[in-house]
Amino acid sequence: MKHLTGKFLLSTLILLFLASQADGQKSLAEKLGYPADAKLLIVHADDIGLAQSVNDATGQAFASGGITSGSIMVPCPWFIDFAEHFKKHPDLDVGIHITLTSEWDYYKFGGVLPASEIPSLLDENGYFYATVEEVGQHADPLEAEKEIRAQIEKAIAYGITPTHLDTHMGSVLAKPELLEIYMKLGKEYNVPVFAPRMMLFAMPDEIRETVKNEYVLADNIFMLNLDGPDASWEEEYGKMIENVSPGLNVMIVHLAHDNAEMQAVAVNHPAFGATWREKDLNYVQSQAFAKALEENQIQLVTWKDIGALK
Amino acid sequence: MKHLTGKFLLSTLILLFLASQADGQKSLAEKLGYPADAKLLIVHADDIGLAQSVNDATGQAFASGGITSGSIMVPCPWFIDFAEHFKKHPDLDVGIHITLTSEWDYYKFGGVLPASEIPSLLDENGYFYATVEEVGQHADPLEAEKEIRAQIEKAIAYGITPTHLDTHMGSVLAKPELLEIYMKLGKEYNVPVFAPRMMLFAMPDEIRETVKNEYVLADNIFMLNLDGPDASWEEEYGKMIENVSPGLNVMIVHLAHDNAEMQAVAVNHPAFGATWREKDLNYVQSQAFAKALEENQIQLVTWKDIGALK
Repeated sequence: MKHLTGKFLLSTLILLFLASQADGQKSLAEKLGYPADAKLLIVHADDIGLAQSVNDATGQAFASGGITSGSIMVPCPWFIDFAEHFKKHPDLDVGIHITLTSEWDYYKFGGVLPASEIPSLLDENGYFYATVEEVGQHADPLEAEKEIRAQIEKAIAYGITPTHLDTHMGSVLAKPELLEIYMKLGKEYNVPVFAPRMMLFAMPDEIRETVKNEYVLADNIFMLNLDGPDASWEEEYGKMIENVSPGLNVMIVHLAHDNAEMQAVAVNHPAFGATWREKDLNYVQSQAFAKALEENQIQLVTWKDIGALK
Repeated sequence: MKHLTGKFLLSTLILLFLASQADGQKSLAEKLGYPADAKLLIVHADDIGLAQSVNDATGQAFASGGITSGSIMVPCPWFIDFAEHFKKHPDLDVGIHITLTSEWDYYKFGGVLPASEIPSLLDENGYFYATVEEVGQHADPLEAEKEIRAQIEKAIAYGITPTHLDTHMGSVLAKPELLEIYMKLGKEYNVPVFAPRMMLFAMPDEIRETVKNEYVLADNIFMLNLDGPDASWEEEYGKMIENVSPGLNVMIVHLAHDNAEMQAVAVNHPAFGATWREKDLNYVQSQAFAKALEENQIQLVTWKDIGALK
C-alpha cells in the first residue's frame, strides 16, 4: 500500500467502476458476446495531447493495433493537433483524461477556463498544481466541476466524441467531492468512468452505496510502477498479463518517442520519462506482447464497446 | 511593397528605432568604440519559447556564436524551459518577443493574463488571433498594454533580464496606439525597442515627431522573405550581407531543428517551417556565414551593448 499518491494512486488498486445497469444477470463478458469467463482487456494510452511526441506515438500505436483506447489532456499544448488527427480517424476510442495537475518541472499548463474562474485550481503562476495532494487541499469543487465540464465540452467542440472519462494522476480522487462530480459527469455525458476501488474506503457511506449500486465493478488495472526505465518491459508486462483474470482488465501505458521534445518535457523524471515511454510504445507493438495476449487467451475490447451496452 | 502583413511586415522595411539620446554628436558605432563608418550587425533569433526544437537550436547557436541575440515568446509552452536555460547562461542577450498573435493551425496559445482581463485580444476559443490584421481590428489598447506588461514582468519573474523589446509578426504595429504603448514600455523598462520606419507614415504627426526626436534610427533589417525552403540560403544571405552598410544592421533568423515537433507546429507552413528553420540554424553556424562577415568587415554587436549606452 505504498505509493498511494500522484501517478501511483491508480497503479496500486485495482478496480474499475463502469456506468451501466447492474442487472445482476449476465457478466460484462457475456453482454459483449464472449463466454462468461472471458478475459477482457483494454490497452489504454494516457496523456494524449501532452506533447507532439506523445501524439505521434499514440497515433502510431492506434494504427498498428498496439492499443485499443486512449485519453486526451484537453488543456495541453498539443490537444488541437490530436483533435485534427481524430477528425481523420473518427473511430478511435478516445476519452477525456481529466487534467487538474501540471507535474513537469519546466513545461506547465493551466485550465481551459479563464484563470479568474478557477483560482482554487491554480498556483501563484497560473498553472495547475504539481501534485494531487495540492489539488485536494485547494480545489473548490464548484470550480473543479466547471473546469472538468469545460474540458469535456472543448473536446466535443473540437470534434472528439469521448468514449469515457478518466483522470490524469488520479486527481479527481483527491477528495470525495471531486469523485462525486466525476461520476455525475460520466452519467450526464453517458460514458463510462474509471476509478480505483480503494476510494470506496475513504468515502461517505451514501456515496459508497451509490457506487456499489450504480457502477459495475470490474477487474485489475495494470500499470508499470518502476522508478526508471532499466527493467525488462517484456518481463514486467509478461508477469502482469499472466495474471489477467476473467472479467474486465485495463492496462495503462504511456507512449512517446524517446526524442528531444519528450526528454525536455520529462527532464528529471526517469519514471514516465522519454525512455520509459518509448519502451511502452515498443512493447505494445511487439511480437512478445501479441504472443502473451494470445497465449493467455485475452480478448481486446474498447471503452466504446462497453459504453454501447448501456 | 507587397507582403505587408503578418510575418512579412518586418521584412519589407528596414529601419530601426533605438531608445537612446539623439545627441547628434557621435554615431552609434563611435559610441560603441568602433570607427564612425563601421558596419554593425546584430544576428537575432526570434521565437524562443515557441517549441523545444526552437529552444534547443537557439541555445546551440548562442553557444557556437552563430547568433548574438534572441527574443522569447513568454506566452508559449516552452517559455519556462528556456528561462531555466537562461539561469545557467545569464549573459545571453535575450529580449521579449512581445506576442499578440497565434498563427499556427493546430498549436495555439493565448495570453499570460487571465482571458477575462484581455477579451479583446482573444478569439472565440481563447487563443490569440492568427493575424496582425485581427489584432488591429479587435485589440483594446488598455488590454494590450496590460498583457504586454505582464509578458515582460513574467519573464523578469522567471529570472530573465530582458535586453530589448521586439514584436512577434510585428503585431504592435497593428495600430498606432499599440506602437505608442510599445515605445513607452521600452522607456519604462529602460531597454531599446525595435520597429520599422514604415509605421511613421501611418502615424499621427505628434507620434512621428516623438519617434524622430527620441529614438535613433538605425539601418537595415535583413530577413529571408521566401515562400519555402528551396532556395540556396548561402546565396540569399550572401547577397544581404554584401549590402550591409555602415551603422546598425539587424539580421533576423528563425532557428529550429527540422524534427517531428517543429514539423507538426508548422504543418502547412513551408515558409518559416521546420526545414526553413533548420536551414537558418545551419547557415548561422556555417563557414560561409563566418567568411561573409569577415570579407565584408562586419562587426557583431548585441542589444545589450546598445542598451548600455544610455
